[in-house]
Amino acid sequence: MSATTSNTRRVLRGGIDLGGTKIEAIVVDSRNNVLGAARHPTPTTGGPADVAAAMAGAIKEAAVAAGVETSALRGVGVGSPGAIDAAAGTVSEARNLPDWEGTFALAPALAEALGTKVLLGNDVQVATDAESELGVGRGRHSLLGVFWGTGVGGGIVFEGKPYVGQGGAGEIGHMVVESGGRRCGCGNRGCMEAYAGRASIEARARKEIKKGRKSKLIKIMKHKERDRFTSAVWFEAVEQGDNLAVELIDGAVAALGAGIASAVNLLDVEAVVIGGGLGVRFGEKYVRKIEKAMKPHLFPGHQPPVVSLVELGDLGGAIGAALLARPPRRASAATAAR
Amino acid sequence: MSATTSNTRRVLRGGIDLGGTKIEAIVVDSRNNVLGAARHPTPTTGGPADVAAAMAGAIKEAAVAAGVETSALRGVGVGSPGAIDAAAGTVSEARNLPDWEGTFALAPALAEALGTKVLLGNDVQVATDAESELGVGRGRHSLLGVFWGTGVGGGIVFEGKPYVGQGGAGEIGHMVVESGGRRCGCGNRGCMEAYAGRASIEARARKEIKKGRKSKLIKIMKHKERDRFTSAVWFEAVEQGDNLAVELIDGAVAALGAGIASAVNLLDVEAVVIGGGLGVRFGEKYVRKIEKAMKPHLFPGHQPPVVSLVELGDLGGAIGAALLARPPRRASAATAAR
Repeated sequence: MSATTSNTRRVLRGGIDLGGTKIEAIVVDSRNNVLGAARHPTPTTGGPADVAAAMAGAIKEAAVAAGVETSALRGVGVGSPGAIDAAAGTVSEARNLPDWEGTFALAPALAEALGTKVLLGNDVQVATDAESELGVGRGRHSLLGVFWGTGVGGGIVFEGKPYVGQGGAGEIGHMVVESGGRRCGCGNRGCMEAYAGRASIEARARKEIKKGRKSKLIKIMKHKERDRFTSAVWFEAVEQGDNLAVELIDGAVAALGAGIASAVNLLDVEAVVIGGGLGVRFGEKYVRKIEKAMKPHLFPGHQPPVVSLVELGDLGGAIGAALLARPPRRASAATAAR
Repeated sequence: MSATTSNTRRVLRGGIDLGGTKIEAIVVDSRNNVLGAARHPTPTTGGPADVAAAMAGAIKEAAVAAGVETSALRGVGVGSPGAIDAAAGTVSEARNLPDWEGTFALAPALAEALGTKVLLGNDVQVATDAESELGVGRGRHSLLGVFWGTGVGGGIVFEGKPYVGQGGAGEIGHMVVESGGRRCGCGNRGCMEAYAGRASIEARARKEIKKGRKSKLIKIMKHKERDRFTSAVWFEAVEQGDNLAVELIDGAVAALGAGIASAVNLLDVEAVVIGGGLGVRFGEKYVRKIEKAMKPHLFPGHQPPVVSLVELGDLGGAIGAALLARPPRRASAATAAR
């Protein structure tokens, strides 16, 4: 690849997006061009050390594709779910990952395996930052990222800076859309994620199927050689007009409409960008459906936000993670990247 | 008053909090001590010019109490509902005020009447800024202000700076807590304000009373020589154990719990401060009830915020408005006040 001359190789960076379903790893150059990529399934058994090993395997594969050793990378950024302590390099309470209720020193473990420094960020916030800087959010003053996947995560950017609250802001999936409603994976009731998250609708679908409801979901899953209802399984089932899948995806869209509109009423953002496994797979047509579902809930006194599909697609999370490994920049940019 | 020497008088400022029910006007010194105050009811008929006249009357009365002419004030800050264009000095779509659907040049009208400059800000945001700088938010990194009154408004402060989105952020009252639920004054359904706002619960109570339901609300209102169910009327009715009032206030607390928790899940703030006409009137005991109602909805992965009653009480909005009329400060403070 012409971009990987000995001169540019020294500024290559790695990015890993650690999702509940899959691990995306990439190697990028200083202009954020993707030179190599690899995707591995997230382990569903074992523990944090097994997940770290799968992550190391994925980024090594991406590095091979980019023609570089991981130890030659300037650094590797990681976008992770759970509670991140960036300074300590730890991830706690990543409840969509196997046996990860406690705290695990992910950055040191990966740094050891890869021979370069590793920087952690919140998965959804780094994906939002990537869209804000390189994707549909370019030139936008305020942006809400909504990542519709295994769960539903949110990221907020205001005046070019992530809004992080105490460090864990963006739990849009746990905004209440039905007081006392459906039980969520977090233990609460009526959260948007209980109606829209992939894990929640899969659990619901399996229960219905067990009770005898007909659905093509299992058959499509087996045909795709998967052990869960991935975004591709849901998409295929809806394409085939499977009643149960259509009903649950329509319910997800309605919940996303109410929840995103609620967040917009509070935040008055200029733009909303929708990504995540389901968001990307269902694409533009469903972004328009979500926008339509938001309409009846938007505060009439506001200028409604522009609603777009992520521009960086499935790799946005990994590209955002790789941004974490950039060298420090001039003061104003450093402030913006805090 | 000893503070109003000829030396300090030159730095006196005015502040007006324009609410849906009442106008609070104050005169403060450079340390934000209140030297004079006046409260007038907000006109329920007429139009923006009549409201402006009532505001001018209130601040003139406060100035008399402080022993100063309004023309000698350094400036008068105004916290207003509706959409504020601070540069143009206009207020648009202030739907809780009489005949104020359009745009009115409030700052020029007041400046003319008062003989000093007038600066506009969002009512709820200035009250949140006041609590952040002078009240319970001192030393807090992130703060959500919730003003429970005629409507339910919100203000957000992060790293000492108001988060304003496109200028209208904070519409916490229009977050959806019941998809497809009760009709709100804004026209949407299921908003938190439809269950918690004073105007909404008054409309609901009057409908119930008309249908024959027994309640002491009307009698208490008449006894207090009011023409609407003010915060004091609600408080007295609840104190007397009036069933209808208790039921509606309990419903308001439940809706506030779900809505504020939703906002906290999204914003991960360190502290929540509760004010507004009803918030201040019902006081500490109800702040604890609201905190309890938030609990089942808070995202388990977060550190729960400290929840407090406003420290500046009923005058916080006017004190925050008066902050707008401060002289520009050193660079860092000016940035923080953007």
